[in-house]
Amino acid sequence: MKTPLILITNDDGYQAAGIQALTCAVSTFAEVYVVAPDGARSGTAASISSTQPVSFHEVKPLPNGYPASIKLFACTGTPVDCIKLAWEQIVPRRPDLILSGINHGDNASISVHYSGTMGAVLEGCMKGIPSIGVSLWMQRGQRYEDIPVCEDTLSALTALCQRVATEGLPQDICLNINIPPSHAFRGWQVCRQSRGLWASEWADATNPHGQRAFWLTGTFTDLEPEATDTDFSALRAGYCSIVPITIDMTAYAAMNDINSLIS
Amino acid sequence: MKTPLILITNDDGYQAAGIQALTCAVSTFAEVYVVAPDGARSGTAASISSTQPVSFHEVKPLPNGYPASIKLFACTGTPVDCIKLAWEQIVPRRPDLILSGINHGDNASISVHYSGTMGAVLEGCMKGIPSIGVSLWMQRGQRYEDIPVCEDTLSALTALCQRVATEGLPQDICLNINIPPSHAFRGWQVCRQSRGLWASEWADATNPHGQRAFWLTGTFTDLEPEATDTDFSALRAGYCSIVPITIDMTAYAAMNDINSLIS
Repeated sequence: MKTPLILITNDDGYQAAGIQALTCAVSTFAEVYVVAPDGARSGTAASISSTQPVSFHEVKPLPNGYPASIKLFACTGTPVDCIKLAWEQIVPRRPDLILSGINHGDNASISVHYSGTMGAVLEGCMKGIPSIGVSLWMQRGQRYEDIPVCEDTLSALTALCQRVATEGLPQDICLNINIPPSHAFRGWQVCRQSRGLWASEWADATNPHGQRAFWLTGTFTDLEPEATDTDFSALRAGYCSIVPITIDMTAYAAMNDINSLIS
Repeated sequence: MKTPLILITNDDGYQAAGIQALTCAVSTFAEVYVVAPDGARSGTAASISSTQPVSFHEVKPLPNGYPASIKLFACTGTPVDCIKLAWEQIVPRRPDLILSGINHGDNASISVHYSGTMGAVLEGCMKGIPSIGVSLWMQRGQRYEDIPVCEDTLSALTALCQRVATEGLPQDICLNINIPPSHAFRGWQVCRQSRGLWASEWADATNPHGQRAFWLTGTFTDLEPEATDTDFSALRAGYCSIVPITIDMTAYAAMNDINSLIS
């Protein structure tokens, strides 16, 4: 069988521990190109660089956390820019799989909309390439290194990636995987996106000259705490959640309601 | 009946012609707060400012294109930041409606994912507020002023906004409206998001020192040119398209496929 080609990015930057762990895991069976931001791009969603040019360079020698077999490129743009640039300027052929992560922090529930990690996954999916985002559920202030994804889970993830690289995913569908903090792999749960709400989103950041400014922060509430079929219910039970995500945002079930609105 | 409160933002900045036209139209029946970026934020999707504080100020006197009855605030952040800041720091009560636009350029098909205009709409929807994005289909290089949204269409749009401000929208559903260039209003079409593909996305931007860099550009292909139920088919026929958009990105139809992937 031909060795699959995997393109990896993230939104924490190529020096993050999570992307290095993911790269090590899948480079055991694949040829890997990492094309990732040159620094933090958290919360950049599917944003693209429209007001300034983007550039990239190959990072040599490789930082310690990367296996010697891979190629690594650092990019000045967003995670979506990384996929677009890699696709047209860097990878030698069509990737069999695009991975994004492992993000330092979950991207469950509505956080999927803000996530640069998942932005890159949507981009891969829009290009027709099987694409998976992987994120680690952590408490605020925790570092990835405090409770890294365990070997057990990395093995299960690697097996899943190998299968998707071979078999693909349904058209216009990508995966949003979230991993609970754990020392063992309890299993996967395919689930839906939980309804959620961010509130209390601004902290004072008044500057030394007295000018008011605000830091984005916030507390998240799972609006379906009793549900047993959502990403957060899976995570709370210690399972790794897999939400199949569609790039078609049409609310088909609402068509009639909206038609009556215009009649 | 109580006068409804409408919060308006965009991703072209508060000085853009499109947001001023939209504000003039709906201020005929509503109390309006405009909280918009202080400059261009095209392509920022649902991104949030996570690495720097955000600030805002009231713009007084109002620029010429705005009606005297409104309040206008300029914000240093993204369109999503504008909604979050307005919600907690600016508007006097819960808005009855959030509007974003009129964007200079369409946000049909998969462009919904990159759009800062639609990012703000998703944010409003996540907060449980009826939210509508409005965009004008233009050719690249055209200015809004070349073929502004006609009075006819603005009237129809105003009537729709008035109805949504009163009746609301289904839970977790917002609207993505695109307007064709036209001198008359032909009608609404409720439709689905067309499948599409962006390609040839990078133009050379090598700098005077010989360092390679790239400008994002691209050509868009509608992958369903024969369809009669998509946003682009509506636009091509001269109709204003309305795609109901869900913030739940779960691909319910793919659940079984993904379950068999992990078994």
